[in-house]
Amino acid sequence: MSQDLFTIDVASALEALRARRPLVHNITNYVAMTVSANVLLALGASPAMVHAVEEVEDFVAISDALVINIGTLSPPWVEAMRRAAVTANAARKPWVLDPVGCGATPYRTSTAADLAAFRPAVIRANASEIISLAGAAGEGPKGVDSTAGSDAALGAARALARRTGSVVAVTGAVDYATDGVDDVRVEGGDAMMPLSTALGCSLSAVTAAFTAVADPMTAAVAALAVFGAAGAEAAQRCRGPGHLPAEICDALHRMNRATLGQGAKISRAA
Amino acid sequence: MSQDLFTIDVASALEALRARRPLVHNITNYVAMTVSANVLLALGASPAMVHAVEEVEDFVAISDALVINIGTLSPPWVEAMRRAAVTANAARKPWVLDPVGCGATPYRTSTAADLAAFRPAVIRANASEIISLAGAAGEGPKGVDSTAGSDAALGAARALARRTGSVVAVTGAVDYATDGVDDVRVEGGDAMMPLSTALGCSLSAVTAAFTAVADPMTAAVAALAVFGAAGAEAAQRCRGPGHLPAEICDALHRMNRATLGQGAKISRAA
Amino acid sequence: MSQDLFTIDVASALEALRARRPLVHNITNYVAMTVSANVLLALGASPAMVHAVEEVEDFVAISDALVINIGTLSPPWVEAMRRAAVTANAARKPWVLDPVGCGATPYRTSTAADLAAFRPAVIRANASEIISLAGAAGEGPKGVDSTAGSDAALGAARALARRTGSVVAVTGAVDYATDGVDDVRVEGGDAMMPLSTALGCSLSAVTAAFTAVADPMTAAVAALAVFGAAGAEAAQRCRGPGHLPAEICDALHRMNRATLGQGAKISRAA
Repeated sequence: MSQDLFTIDVASALEALRARRPLVHNITNYVAMTVSANVLLALGASPAMVHAVEEVEDFVAISDALVINIGTLSPPWVEAMRRAAVTANAARKPWVLDPVGCGATPYRTSTAADLAAFRPAVIRANASEIISLAGAAGEGPKGVDSTAGSDAALGAARALARRTGSVVAVTGAVDYATDGVDDVRVEGGDAMMPLSTALGCSLSAVTAAFTAVADPMTAAVAALAVFGAAGAEAAQRCRGPGHLPAEICDALHRMNRATLGQGAKISRAA
Repeated sequence: MSQDLFTIDVASALEALRARRPLVHNITNYVAMTVSANVLLALGASPAMVHAVEEVEDFVAISDALVINIGTLSPPWVEAMRRAAVTANAARKPWVLDPVGCGATPYRTSTAADLAAFRPAVIRANASEIISLAGAAGEGPKGVDSTAGSDAALGAARALARRTGSVVAVTGAVDYATDGVDDVRVEGGDAMMPLSTALGCSLSAVTAAFTAVADPMTAAVAALAVFGAAGAEAAQRCRGPGHLPAEICDALHRMNRATLGQGAKISRAA
Repeated sequence: MSQDLFTIDVASALEALRARRPLVHNITNYVAMTVSANVLLALGASPAMVHAVEEVEDFVAISDALVINIGTLSPPWVEAMRRAAVTANAARKPWVLDPVGCGATPYRTSTAADLAAFRPAVIRANASEIISLAGAAGEGPKGVDSTAGSDAALGAARALARRTGSVVAVTGAVDYATDGVDDVRVEGGDAMMPLSTALGCSLSAVTAAFTAVADPMTAAVAALAVFGAAGAEAAQRCRGPGHLPAEICDALHRMNRATLGQGAKISRAA
């Protein structure tokens, strides 16, 4: 009850996604592939993992959305990522960038910056990655886990959004989505989520699925809200992080307006 | 009770598999590797994932069966697949082809067709993939999930079996295995199974394990029956798709003649 | 209660690990990546999977420990492994070698031997792999699963430790760690563990995490004890191997001095 306007938008986006069952093309890291595929299936999307330059452009052409995640990058994959981004833009297909570990190595940072220049619909990352990608001052990243809170990255996220034209979603204990002008704050999830691998990557894939049925800001917020609600519900059924991915899939599969409204709190950021 | 002859054959094949503990060489996609390995271990086989051309032929030589799955293909992997198929044939080792996403891109379709020409013991795929691989008219595939029912692909499956000399297993709500002359229908599984990734790929791996202890038609039917029974039992323990792979492993691990007989219904197709 | 001195050392190492939250660089196989990442997170470490030669040296430089696992090797990955080992040695960062499938193919055996020559802090493997890597007589390996018991490999483990200067951990129904002079025997785990893929690989990753906070022998023993205790506790909550990885993560996440003391028995080998 007392669902605010924004929650209703998210619920409608979820209904649209399930009705459309978008084909989501994933160029993602080895660690996240299985989790991302299961999360997308549970949500109501149709995932595919395709990375060879021999077919990546053909696959973009039949897909409804694309996610590019640089978690376990190497030159042949980066070339495929570039071609996929260019093809998606030419075909006006929305795509999402997840710059995993941006800032940890020069190769990773430059690859992320190159891809961000192709103007993804949404960039989804943790605070350290956003700070690094924005080129803003801040704590250096430690590996692929964030060393900064999402609050500390909101300024960098806005700057990045203004420069790239992308909506930027920065996730942490609290999540934000910004287009550089307006910021939306999403509360949800659970402190146990960073202890299960590839959930951030899966959230990026979920964001891509929503871009197939909604504008970038709505897609980013809907993904944060739906994933946060699923994570919060899932964590209540867990005594540790081990079963969290499976429980998140179950929560996504069973999610409806009521569970969504209970699990995520969306507000305009101050 | 009232197990028909066919069920008893399947149970005997399962006993033979567990007694032999075949080493199953997997050249499979990144998404399916962990799930396939766990399914094979739970079933009673010994899985290994080996793909480098530097060792793939040596590994075929010590394996009991091979599965080639093109889910996340790229040129070095395709070269390894070709060499493995040739080596397996020369050594009279049975192998199974899973042409994931055949029809989705030209690269994928031509690779699948090339590999099918090496005469796998069994080809296991969904309806859209079989229709595409057979070159028959039908709905085009949408990504890697099928857009056609298995019934609609039975004619294409028969034609493909006659042309390749392979037993063709086409899976969906109902599964079929055909050698081009006789068709076997297997009912089992659960509607939730397509919502968990890589279960079809794992079924192909299970089929390969059975080819180490049975002729191709028996292997195909045994795999469909065993996996279908495990899936049906597993789904009863799940409130969503999240825990399905783990529950399928448990069901396979605990499977005996009684649970097998309850879970799968095998009949000659009309 | 009645925890012996060694158990207390292990508990202290676990506390040190959790306090340090070491960044563990994994160059590991595709099958093990997700499981290893989740196990490391549940333990209290920060995992990252990085394999491209373009960044592998940079990543070693910011990591606290490294694990090199040859499970799904190919030439570009082997080159990255070599560079990472050299860089780790130059920076005095500890690293662990997991020679998966050593002995199964010449490529695998020679790669394992080459890497072992770079003097890892710890080599962790099953009995067949240790026997093969030591060049000792013994049963040949069958794929990636061991055909020999750990007892039978203890002599080979000692010889390997003396030749390489590494601590060698050989795992099976009973686990041993040896520096070539002193042997430690660790009892724990459960017979169901070999039926779930990548647990040995994850144990190697856990060993690497401990090398960031302890000397190689303490790290090897702590990893065996902690993982064995977690496996034993996890198995009690399982009716089959399907949920074992998730339960191991939960057990690691919740582990304290009491559960650790109950789950692992450490003694000087006779």
